[in-house]
Amino acid sequence: MKKKCIGIDVGGTTAKIGLLSVQGQILDKWEIPTRKEEGGKYILPDIARSVLDYLKTHQISVQELAGAGIGVPGPVMPDGNVEVCVNLGWTDVNPEKELSRLLGGVYVKAGNDANVAALGEMWQGGGKGHKSLMLFTLGTGVGGGVVLDEKIVSGFRGMGGELGHIVVNFDEPLQCNCHNHGCLEQYASATGIVKEAHRSVEASEEPSVLRKKPDFSCKDVLDAAKAGDRLALETVHRCMRYLGLAMHYVSHVTDPEIFVIGGGVSKAGQFLLDIIREYYEGFTVMGRRKADIGLATLGNDAGMYGAARLILDKELENI
Amino acid sequence: MKKKCIGIDVGGTTAKIGLLSVQGQILDKWEIPTRKEEGGKYILPDIARSVLDYLKTHQISVQELAGAGIGVPGPVMPDGNVEVCVNLGWTDVNPEKELSRLLGGVYVKAGNDANVAALGEMWQGGGKGHKSLMLFTLGTGVGGGVVLDEKIVSGFRGMGGELGHIVVNFDEPLQCNCHNHGCLEQYASATGIVKEAHRSVEASEEPSVLRKKPDFSCKDVLDAAKAGDRLALETVHRCMRYLGLAMHYVSHVTDPEIFVIGGGVSKAGQFLLDIIREYYEGFTVMGRRKADIGLATLGNDAGMYGAARLILDKELENI
Repeated sequence: MKKKCIGIDVGGTTAKIGLLSVQGQILDKWEIPTRKEEGGKYILPDIARSVLDYLKTHQISVQELAGAGIGVPGPVMPDGNVEVCVNLGWTDVNPEKELSRLLGGVYVKAGNDANVAALGEMWQGGGKGHKSLMLFTLGTGVGGGVVLDEKIVSGFRGMGGELGHIVVNFDEPLQCNCHNHGCLEQYASATGIVKEAHRSVEASEEPSVLRKKPDFSCKDVLDAAKAGDRLALETVHRCMRYLGLAMHYVSHVTDPEIFVIGGGVSKAGQFLLDIIREYYEGFTVMGRRKADIGLATLGNDAGMYGAARLILDKELENI
Repeated sequence: MKKKCIGIDVGGTTAKIGLLSVQGQILDKWEIPTRKEEGGKYILPDIARSVLDYLKTHQISVQELAGAGIGVPGPVMPDGNVEVCVNLGWTDVNPEKELSRLLGGVYVKAGNDANVAALGEMWQGGGKGHKSLMLFTLGTGVGGGVVLDEKIVSGFRGMGGELGHIVVNFDEPLQCNCHNHGCLEQYASATGIVKEAHRSVEASEEPSVLRKKPDFSCKDVLDAAKAGDRLALETVHRCMRYLGLAMHYVSHVTDPEIFVIGGGVSKAGQFLLDIIREYYEGFTVMGRRKADIGLATLGNDAGMYGAARLILDKELENI
């Protein structure tokens, strides 16, 4: 049996590469820069060279690998093709075929990075022990991932799990990065929470610690809310109400075992989960039991774990 | 190879029973009354007796059956258990085990009736040729079903595909049957369209053919809208806008190939689909291509088809 695998999480700045056991332990990990120039044509060769160098240095043969999984920051079609990936400069690249060729025929499977992170959290993180979950990653934007029966739901056009761009507010004057108005990402991301806090500051005369620090961060808002600052707390409630609403919408589709909340915003921990749960359960009347809500635990490694897990469906059956 | 199968669609009034070929043709079909008294304890024995009598009369041996599928009007857990089914009077019934026993060990698989109808439409109806779809059945209520990779998504608590109870309007004063307020079912069902038309009639002095027939039906509203009656048309747009909105929400989860619209309301045909598409595509900015939208074609037989299809995953691989 092949005992090791490679998990790769390609971001716009660096690619994180991990060597994992097929049981799900990271044995080693490292990063290389993502060279986006010339349509991102160096990205996969750079990754392949780095992996092959590592294997050679550590006297690991390619035959020991069950495969390599790769998460990319854009939609991946069911056949592994990436039509457009703005973050990497790619147009019509098939990382499965290309990386496999560069690695001498190793089995390669690709997925959208947010979906892959959801799979990682299911395997070794906040969703461990569950087979179906939805991940909301509350970072600069809002990423989403849907896992059903231990498999990513990538969708017919690669748009499965795009949970950050569900419209939750039709009165939003500002445009989202996706060009729509009122997407969840505009409220439940770190950027969104800061924007909403500024709106709260401007809309009233209510005293708040945020007024003393005009360039406050999302963490400042969350910390102030935790400390009982009413204006900050009201802002966090407004933003998490939208998240609870989106969770209500999507729970009626796949009825997941658990929602996992990750990203920088989720560092606010149980305080945040309690607010999210209040709204999600308030909106969702049907069903005697609601889905659990938990925190992501893998941080920036979720993508590596999930990418490795992508290729293990067959291997795991033999363990 | 076993060439025949049984598809059963149990409703609150009758149970529809069909004998189908494993290729998906209905060879014969009939109905028996649903006896709900005494906790619905006669329902499965009545069905089993009817099936066995039919097989005997037509000299078909039980061994020729690949199995029997059964759709029930309530949530079905992944293990086949039905915790509560108000429409049949059931509490903690496992139709898979019980019907299998009554049929002498024939393989039985159960599913929620709306989900099963979605599977039927995928197999032989409006979704034929597709592997992933969502069905909205616009009848007295709004039923939903999600099919992914040719399989029903029943969810962890049997609440998968409960699309009619997504909240689309927080300003709704009336309560839905599920006790929530503002569910899709309150607008996109036949009942909902009539209610909304009455609201339109009461809210303005605008002339309308509906004013001449105070007990108008949903069909009256749709016919008037088709004929250009402004008040009726505005009502239909308002109701279908909510459906388009729900389709936007759910499309971000599984990104289906096609939405299939069924139920009595869908008899309004292409006229209705065009309005639904206008709103769904308007709400959904992401993705170069949107999901197709088509009409259900199997009518009341969808449940029989889908119930039969439930048991054929293994058989179909051998065809």
